[in-house]
Amino acid sequence: MVLTMYPKSFKRLIDHFASLPSVGPKMAERLVLYLFKQDSEKLQEFAKSLSNLKTDLRYCQRCFNISEETLCGICRDSARNQKIICVVEDPIDIIAIEKTKRYTGAYHVLGGLLSPGEKNQTQIRFNELLDRIENISEVIIATNPTTEGDATALYIQRLLRETTIKVTRLARGLSTGADLEHADEITLGSAILNRK
Amino acid sequence: MVLTMYPKSFKRLIDHFASLPSVGPKMAERLVLYLFKQDSEKLQEFAKSLSNLKTDLRYCQRCFNISEETLCGICRDSARNQKIICVVEDPIDIIAIEKTKRYTGAYHVLGGLLSPGEKNQTQIRFNELLDRIENISEVIIATNPTTEGDATALYIQRLLRETTIKVTRLARGLSTGADLEHADEITLGSAILNRK
Repeated sequence: MVLTMYPKSFKRLIDHFASLPSVGPKMAERLVLYLFKQDSEKLQEFAKSLSNLKTDLRYCQRCFNISEETLCGICRDSARNQKIICVVEDPIDIIAIEKTKRYTGAYHVLGGLLSPGEKNQTQIRFNELLDRIENISEVIIATNPTTEGDATALYIQRLLRETTIKVTRLARGLSTGADLEHADEITLGSAILNRK
Repeated sequence: MVLTMYPKSFKRLIDHFASLPSVGPKMAERLVLYLFKQDSEKLQEFAKSLSNLKTDLRYCQRCFNISEETLCGICRDSARNQKIICVVEDPIDIIAIEKTKRYTGAYHVLGGLLSPGEKNQTQIRFNELLDRIENISEVIIATNPTTEGDATALYIQRLLRETTIKVTRLARGLSTGADLEHADEITLGSAILNRK
């Protein structure tokens, strides 16, 4: 009802934008109007880039990072320690960790987290992780510090219990620059327990 | 620096999204990752819709609304009162006014507002408005109630001063459902002056 007044092709593009996460119908309208004001060339490049996204890129066969080739740059890099696997939820998390420049091992992208009550484990790449653990010395679980992240971490710890692989999790504690006074109890508690 | 780790085609699409208004680089990353997870068909439709935006659509030759034909649906509609023109900034404003179902005249899209200090008047479709005013009985100025909207309204009022055309502006007052206590002074002042 809301958008019936727009020409069909305009409305269609609004709907596409509105289907994206954190883009509401109002914002979608503004985005499409903005695009309509841009020159055709820019628009064509945007469209081409979108159209080629899945043909140019695939998931790395080993770690499921986004890659232009069968194996991603990180998995192909022999200078990296391929015996350590850092397990993350999404390829975005890899970028976040890479930016720290403190990690030189490999990765494994789960593609999701366990959520209590939901039976969607099959999509999460646990088996693909188990297929890789031969010759691995350490698995670092870098899931988000949330209920889902914790549940997933626990599950992986259990999966690897029978192996000799060292399983670790990212430390929890105060954020750099944060105020002690405003830290939540659980974070502050972790910071005390993990003091060094 | 931030996004150097992504494959080129991924990064390119992130940049396209990040160039949109109110989309930051972090949000752009998430949008592209989300799209990457969608099926190819949906992606192709989105791309096609984007690619066709400017070929399927144009500005209405008369009112500069977005249109699939030379004249938009509103300008072609003989049931509407084509002697009244409602002047708005953007095609989005037309939709907002149409939704009220309280207006049955024609429109004129300025495509911008006067801003103090900026010399960008030439893009704003004032001349195109003047070209239309023969046989027009009323011009309703529906620019935003902001400094720019007010400046533009004043300018149009001055342009039309020598004509016999009735020039009106949208009423200002309290928003329906708003709290008297929280209304700003200017709005409340307008509401008092325009009481009826």
